[in-house]
Amino acid sequence: MEGLAPDALRIAVLGAGSWGTTFAKVLADAGAQTTLWARRREVAQEITETHRNSDYLPGINLPPNLRAHDRLERVLAGAQQVYLSVPSQSLRSNLHSIRDIVPPDVPVVSLMKGVERGTGLRMSEVIANELGIDVERIAVVSGPNLALEIAKKQPTAAVVASASHATAVAVAQAATNEYFRSFVNTDVIGTEFGGVLKNLIAVAVGIADGVGYGENTKASIITRGLVELTHFAVAYGAQAETMSGLAGLGDLIATCESKLSRNNTAGRLLGQGYAFTEVIAQMNQTAEGLSSVGPILELAEQRGVHMPIVAQVAQVLEGTLDPRELAPHLATDSDEPQGE
Amino acid sequence: MEGLAPDALRIAVLGAGSWGTTFAKVLADAGAQTTLWARRREVAQEITETHRNSDYLPGINLPPNLRAHDRLERVLAGAQQVYLSVPSQSLRSNLHSIRDIVPPDVPVVSLMKGVERGTGLRMSEVIANELGIDVERIAVVSGPNLALEIAKKQPTAAVVASASHATAVAVAQAATNEYFRSFVNTDVIGTEFGGVLKNLIAVAVGIADGVGYGENTKASIITRGLVELTHFAVAYGAQAETMSGLAGLGDLIATCESKLSRNNTAGRLLGQGYAFTEVIAQMNQTAEGLSSVGPILELAEQRGVHMPIVAQVAQVLEGTLDPRELAPHLATDSDEPQGE
Repeated sequence: MEGLAPDALRIAVLGAGSWGTTFAKVLADAGAQTTLWARRREVAQEITETHRNSDYLPGINLPPNLRAHDRLERVLAGAQQVYLSVPSQSLRSNLHSIRDIVPPDVPVVSLMKGVERGTGLRMSEVIANELGIDVERIAVVSGPNLALEIAKKQPTAAVVASASHATAVAVAQAATNEYFRSFVNTDVIGTEFGGVLKNLIAVAVGIADGVGYGENTKASIITRGLVELTHFAVAYGAQAETMSGLAGLGDLIATCESKLSRNNTAGRLLGQGYAFTEVIAQMNQTAEGLSSVGPILELAEQRGVHMPIVAQVAQVLEGTLDPRELAPHLATDSDEPQGE
Repeated sequence: MEGLAPDALRIAVLGAGSWGTTFAKVLADAGAQTTLWARRREVAQEITETHRNSDYLPGINLPPNLRAHDRLERVLAGAQQVYLSVPSQSLRSNLHSIRDIVPPDVPVVSLMKGVERGTGLRMSEVIANELGIDVERIAVVSGPNLALEIAKKQPTAAVVASASHATAVAVAQAATNEYFRSFVNTDVIGTEFGGVLKNLIAVAVGIADGVGYGENTKASIITRGLVELTHFAVAYGAQAETMSGLAGLGDLIATCESKLSRNNTAGRLLGQGYAFTEVIAQMNQTAEGLSSVGPILELAEQRGVHMPIVAQVAQVLEGTLDPRELAPHLATDSDEPQGE
């Protein structure tokens, strides 16, 4: 490729949605020769030929060292790192198709946030499970990462976590450029749960917003929400410090404050008085937070974790709690009646 | 007073600005017979006669059990709790005037956020110092408490801290009603520093906003900013948990997200390219955060605390850093190069 150092890192990114394309741009802007897999041939052609992905990143120019293909074999051949950014519920079937063509020994990195329906597995667990590779090869990326802002080169930081410090460092180095900085961590569980749980709190904040409550209420929900999601994640093996860092608190704040967040929007509609079914019909797109409420509350109960805010969201979804009654000063652990 | 239980708590609140009036309303709505001291007689009369404070809380109806006076003796006579909400730099002279008329043994509560210029003392320290009373009688209130939202009865929570748990409980009980809940804490230092330090981070977030950066950048600054202010407060004797609660993180988020915050506004003007002197001229009102930058950095240096975000704000104020260069991915402790 013209203009690139002959020894540039070769990276494959699977999934040309807004986040996959943005992250491929981050990697290319950091110097890697990056190839994106797009399911649809016309999207791949547009990216390679015009340096645009007009469906997902309108108005953004992509760098010349970012190319795309619709054939997985072409994208994966010779890749020294593989990144995955496909819909969380289709991850397993996608992994199945690449199982035999992923280059051996290279890091496999999840850019996805979610848990698999049915199994409740985190994305890195699905990867380990379906590719049958050592967890030391797997890394996950998370943080306050609204795609469009990063595509516009606004300064942003993220966390790269892997059970192997060396893998995390290799990925973080590839994913650091002048506007994007990756920090390393070995707490994969906390880093992944941060990205899942924040959606539930974002729904709660959206509800408060829809009702017409202001910044005090939202700040209280975020603050108490962080306590809830920390309790949950720690009960499942995460480190508390991860939850107060970029992959926990940082992602939580960015999601709760973004008017573009689907979870936030879903919450706002609920707060305005629409019923759950109406919200689903109006939104046209899934809001991960809505479908996670039930499974997360079940998992919380299994480990005896009290999640009053998420429980209130569930009640609003069921129609048994008036959104105006959602209040952080009620949403308090019963075992700490007047403590913070 | 008509309609009130004869055994209602009698409370004095000194200072009829927006926060003093709002907090007096919280106490009155919780059932106390509350008397507000207003420096100006016409303000006192308006509050007592028309149940309004149109200068500071336009459009808000005050309850009938909230009255006001311009004479300190009348306000303090028989008070069972005394709350202070005067400008932080005039606290000492105000305390001087009430020194001999504050009822003995009753709690004295600071609603103020700031440190005294020159001495660097926190408000509770100025109170102990100037009234010569036992610290067990002193309490402080802090949290995500934008006055106008509380005046509109939006659900909000706060922290009441005192060296004496019993004092904190008494104050928290008086300051809890259906829309406002007070939690108790014995970490006075952390609770007070939270309210001071958040203003510095709010300036940084304002700068990012003024430059045109989005939610990722702001969330990263808040997340890393919390780390900085926790390091600082802990170095001065606070508990880290206080900083991740309502008086730290909660207040920080509410202030950073409020478009009405003076600190935020000052930062936005800086981010838009105005010089420090132009911002001061344009704002017409002091922004506590701007004047605290220097003193806080000095205190930080004395205890060896690294505050990269606050240091960058200082450089922007000095004109030695372009606001567009303020970036959370650079603002990182040098001793944790790739850690979170």
